[in-house]
Amino acid sequence: MAVPRTRSDREGRRAEIIQAATEVIAERGYRGATLAAVAERVGLTQQGLMHHFPTKEALLVAVLDARDQWDTASAALRGPQAWPLDVLADLVEYNATRPGIVQAFTVLVGDSVTEGHPAQAHFRERYARVRAGGADALRAAHGERLPGGLTPERAATLLAAVMDGLQIQWLLDPEAVDMPGAFRDFLGLLGSVTATEP
Amino acid sequence: MAVPRTRSDREGRRAEIIQAATEVIAERGYRGATLAAVAERVGLTQQGLMHHFPTKEALLVAVLDARDQWDTASAALRGPQAWPLDVLADLVEYNATRPGIVQAFTVLVGDSVTEGHPAQAHFRERYARVRAGGADALRAAHGERLPGGLTPERAATLLAAVMDGLQIQWLLDPEAVDMPGAFRDFLGLLGSVTATEP
Repeated sequence: MAVPRTRSDREGRRAEIIQAATEVIAERGYRGATLAAVAERVGLTQQGLMHHFPTKEALLVAVLDARDQWDTASAALRGPQAWPLDVLADLVEYNATRPGIVQAFTVLVGDSVTEGHPAQAHFRERYARVRAGGADALRAAHGERLPGGLTPERAATLLAAVMDGLQIQWLLDPEAVDMPGAFRDFLGLLGSVTATEP
Repeated sequence: MAVPRTRSDREGRRAEIIQAATEVIAERGYRGATLAAVAERVGLTQQGLMHHFPTKEALLVAVLDARDQWDTASAALRGPQAWPLDVLADLVEYNATRPGIVQAFTVLVGDSVTEGHPAQAHFRERYARVRAGGADALRAAHGERLPGGLTPERAATLLAAVMDGLQIQWLLDPEAVDMPGAFRDFLGLLGSVTATEP
């Protein structure tokens, strides 16, 4: 099998491998995913695959980075003014159209809490960023004081939790759980009332 | 090694095996957990272990059932009147004292969304029960109409999501995330204001 010669060939092939790896992780979990299974799905030998990603960890990092890029791209489409809460709601809506990606993410984040998992630091840092970005978005939309007397920072922890928890319930039972609707319910809860000073 | 002779010996040994299996799943994930590793931890041969649990799936079912029993026991201690939201807050507080159990649960539920996972039906049914029980508790506490115009059923989906999502963030970064405090924040959000009719 021919090794791609040009930069764009190589990048196309890398993207194809990352897509296949995401699928395999979604189906089998991270520990069940093998380089051989990913290689087979894109019609490469394992050695051909390792030309692009020498280890399973390297492929994992690429899968996680690709997801972060999609999220950022989706947010960036709206421009800096629009960023806040609407974009998060749109992202959840978009996620409901790509169960494979959501499934891979749910598997990886669950697995990342096991001892010495190679994605643990990635997710720890990602949640710190998500909480900080969420607090900025909530502050811009609702000011310093949210319903229940919550600060934007405390509400941001809940915002991230709701997104993850809804993914689990929706993946297990998509007919019973309207993920985007439930997420908008939560945003409504944060914005439905103006907190009064005590 | 001697096989336990009496019923209580056998039950004590079973409980010990379930505890060890929970630890091994928490550390290595479900796919990474082996009967051999569990057997080693309780000082049994693999064959000795299989006398109690003939397959890995049988042991998984026992781990999941044990967790459900702990949760129910914790709720039952309060009696039927007290069940509702306080007990859930207490459960989250209790969970913060047993990271190993929470870790095993987070790993298993994440893994359960992969293709054909043996715990998938268990978790699908569990969430249906949790949502129904949560809706009852919310209705008892706040009536038919919650802040943001939510029904108890719609708020219950968020309640379950917040519990799961907070566990992930807390396991990854226990110093940054106050899981019980954040859960009480969420309950405050649901109870802080009385919804007005339109």
